[in-house]
Amino acid sequence: MTFELLSKDPNSKARAGKLTTDHGVIETPIFMPVGTIGTVKGVHQRELKEEINPDIILGNTYHLYLRPGTEILKKAGGLHKFMNWDRNILTDSGGYQVYSLSANRKIKEIGVKFKSHIDGSTHLFTPESAVDIQREIGADIIMAFDECTPYPCDYKYAQRSMHMTHRWLDRCMTHMKSTSPLYGHQQTLFPIVQGSTYKDLRQQSAEYIANVGAEGNAIGGLSVGEPDDEMYAMTEVVNAILPEDKPRYLMGVGTPSNLLENIALGVDMFDCVMPTRNARNGMLFTSEGTINIKNKKWEDDFSPLDPAGYTWVDTEYSKAYLKHLFSVKELLGKQIATIHNLGFYLWLVREARRQIQAGTFRTWKDIMVKKLSIRL
Amino acid sequence: MTFELLSKDPNSKARAGKLTTDHGVIETPIFMPVGTIGTVKGVHQRELKEEINPDIILGNTYHLYLRPGTEILKKAGGLHKFMNWDRNILTDSGGYQVYSLSANRKIKEIGVKFKSHIDGSTHLFTPESAVDIQREIGADIIMAFDECTPYPCDYKYAQRSMHMTHRWLDRCMTHMKSTSPLYGHQQTLFPIVQGSTYKDLRQQSAEYIANVGAEGNAIGGLSVGEPDDEMYAMTEVVNAILPEDKPRYLMGVGTPSNLLENIALGVDMFDCVMPTRNARNGMLFTSEGTINIKNKKWEDDFSPLDPAGYTWVDTEYSKAYLKHLFSVKELLGKQIATIHNLGFYLWLVREARRQIQAGTFRTWKDIMVKKLSIRL
Repeated sequence: MTFELLSKDPNSKARAGKLTTDHGVIETPIFMPVGTIGTVKGVHQRELKEEINPDIILGNTYHLYLRPGTEILKKAGGLHKFMNWDRNILTDSGGYQVYSLSANRKIKEIGVKFKSHIDGSTHLFTPESAVDIQREIGADIIMAFDECTPYPCDYKYAQRSMHMTHRWLDRCMTHMKSTSPLYGHQQTLFPIVQGSTYKDLRQQSAEYIANVGAEGNAIGGLSVGEPDDEMYAMTEVVNAILPEDKPRYLMGVGTPSNLLENIALGVDMFDCVMPTRNARNGMLFTSEGTINIKNKKWEDDFSPLDPAGYTWVDTEYSKAYLKHLFSVKELLGKQIATIHNLGFYLWLVREARRQIQAGTFRTWKDIMVKKLSIRL
Repeated sequence: MTFELLSKDPNSKARAGKLTTDHGVIETPIFMPVGTIGTVKGVHQRELKEEINPDIILGNTYHLYLRPGTEILKKAGGLHKFMNWDRNILTDSGGYQVYSLSANRKIKEIGVKFKSHIDGSTHLFTPESAVDIQREIGADIIMAFDECTPYPCDYKYAQRSMHMTHRWLDRCMTHMKSTSPLYGHQQTLFPIVQGSTYKDLRQQSAEYIANVGAEGNAIGGLSVGEPDDEMYAMTEVVNAILPEDKPRYLMGVGTPSNLLENIALGVDMFDCVMPTRNARNGMLFTSEGTINIKNKKWEDDFSPLDPAGYTWVDTEYSKAYLKHLFSVKELLGKQIATIHNLGFYLWLVREARRQIQAGTFRTWKDIMVKKLSIRL
């Protein structure tokens, strides 16, 4: 994997870059749609590629490990072939889902023992097995196995957890080096900065992670309930330490405004279920502001979903029609809203990139953040 | 509306024809995908048009009347505009859903009083209001308001009901003549033959309907639980009486074999929820036989969904992948299966048409019916 820094915004820390892997180029800043369990919910791979057009998507190790399982994925020749997606895939390490979905999980130095949310069966994830599973999935970018601390989190716990995350990282790196990719394309591992909302812990962790010398670095443990300002403060602290010539990935973030503010602080990569999950609940991010399409006010509004036309659905369908589909709980409603929201998110990061390259990012960002706060 | 009979199969009653309305040409035999409530479930209009390519779809008056309601549809300029579908639409009269979905429905000479399955509110459908509502929906083909008798049905009831259906038809025709289309395109009404599974009643009814001189005629009250042979016997009796130079529409039918056998008996038009509903339950009609994609045997079968490739999904996705999507209950599974099944149904009627025009329909039909009975 290579990363090229193409331009920097003169009035912020925002950067435009180019990440290259065996599955092609990823132009940054990038938003990675979440393809939880081998599918971006409600979207055909062809639509994703041709209409929404992200260079990379995300898969969840925990979900894929449970179903279809690594045996099937290995037989298929990896997740790319299984789901017929020939661009990049990043997988999380499974840790986050283990903490949020499993019953009776036990975190120990060796790893995490947990019960499947599906059938209650017992499993153990270790730094080594998390690497193995991600090797078997065939992710282009593998995430280190970490503990994502909750918010709020007391200092002692955050500190202890951070140190364990660092020790787990060392085990992940060792295991990465002693194992090989299975499907003929290179895989790289991103370590993850933790430290909750404590500046000194974040600094310590960022220094530890920077010293590992990985091809890219991630910031975890944010967007877990803390106020936006605390998130931004942590990103700023960490980005001052993480190497400038490597991509920075802020995990699980966030709202459109969160993306822009963190791009301004030097973040290059994002993922979040928000555009897809909120779409399925009828919430649309549009060029004119945020819409709850379930509101009665839209029932006779026959104007296009979004005049900006980020994807074809925006002008193909009216607000009244989409409102009707949500009223009658039709599948097509979720499909339309999902394509729209992902189209909006991908437009947002592409436009951010263009503005960075034009040197106008900061002004544009401030205007956009205001626009994004409008509720229609 | 005009209907042109293009060719007749020498070895059966099968015909190939061409129906022309203000929304374009409908090549027959045709299968009409069911777009219940303003959407063919799980399919974008664009996919429907470009990939599945039916010349006409069906809408359900009962559902559309309740939601979004005719006020919204009128404001939108009719269902075509509301759902952005510029080809033909046929609507049923609402009768069938009233009988099958409503609580406390009461059938009287004036019409049917029923309670909405959504909120329990009371409504009255009459032959006149059924025409008005279909005018307001903007259907190209309007169906007469009838009573669809259940199976089995005693002779006396079937006879009484048939005569009421005939009286209702007269009221529909009178009301059609005294009202006008709302959106600038012509609308035509198809009367419906009833008479349950009684040959003499079917004959009487077919004669009554033939005398009306409508631009097309329908056969109702079949595919309600009777054995296939009884269905075919009734179709045969009725088709011997219905005029040859008008299209014949067999309502609510059926399996792929049912389509072929009835085409052989001179039917031109079909609709059924089977391809879409069964798709959502994981049942696929393929060139190799019928598949229940939920079966464990498909979990490591990485061959294409269907090598015949009726639509792009057939070669884009594997059986193993679709099985996985159904196992994890992902939306995309329903989407893929629906496109596949509709693609298969539309291929089937198009191929039937080709075989009729080539004079080889009968032989081909007999082979296909055997193939269609295979369960993989």
